[in-house]
Amino acid sequence: MKISHIEHLGIAVESIEAALPYYENVLGLKCYNIEEVADQKVKTAFLKVGEVKIELLEPTSPDSPIAKFLEKGGRGVHHVAFCIEDGVANALAECEEKGIRLIDKAPRLGAEKLQIAFLHPKSTCGVLTELCEH
Amino acid sequence: MKISHIEHLGIAVESIEAALPYYENVLGLKCYNIEEVADQKVKTAFLKVGEVKIELLEPTSPDSPIAKFLEKGGRGVHHVAFCIEDGVANALAECEEKGIRLIDKAPRLGAEKLQIAFLHPKSTCGVLTELCEH
Repeated sequence: MKISHIEHLGIAVESIEAALPYYENVLGLKCYNIEEVADQKVKTAFLKVGEVKIELLEPTSPDSPIAKFLEKGGRGVHHVAFCIEDGVANALAECEEKGIRLIDKAPRLGAEKLQIAFLHPKSTCGVLTELCEH
Repeated sequence: MKISHIEHLGIAVESIEAALPYYENVLGLKCYNIEEVADQKVKTAFLKVGEVKIELLEPTSPDSPIAKFLEKGGRGVHHVAFCIEDGVANALAECEEKGIRLIDKAPRLGAEKLQIAFLHPKSTCGVLTELCEH
């Protein structure tokens, strides 16, 4: 697969409202979009730093994957998303061939209308990894 | 403070040797440097993806901060490092004034001869945050 850059970092927060003052007033970044991703049961806020987006993830339901991550004591970076130049479907096929465990067998629609798929952290040295395509 | 981009992601691994085949053969990234940072008791391997470095961190001693992170069940991204355009010392002064808890009161020498300082995750919404200056 051809990775051009890190598309975004997904960062779990209890509350976007509580987290934004740190990102905006201390780090000096600017939130340019807030949207809800219904099927992931999260509200997301986007900020840009260089070529990388920071995607703050707030659970909108107790059974959201982000709620579970926070409940288990997970803090901070929840996942790393790479932008795939030659397509997520190709990358998934290549990963499967190389014995990487897939969470998504096929690309699906994510936030900001990206095509996305997740790789399982058991196969990626502990980093929940997302592949993205614009 | 003025952040230009994410300088690197610090990713904790049990073993660089075991992790590199995933980064190189699956993700297609290239390791260009391996060095030991004695005072942090880690061995580090660097790969570049777009403008961001991935810094794999392997503990070289059981009392390394990375060994403790892994021992407590921590996996994946250990810290996020921002490149500060107007200097780490300035940024630390600004953070302190804004009530952010500092791990390092003054910049110190990190891997790749960067001036670095860490902010405490209690003040940064759970993300262990490093400020860097070339």
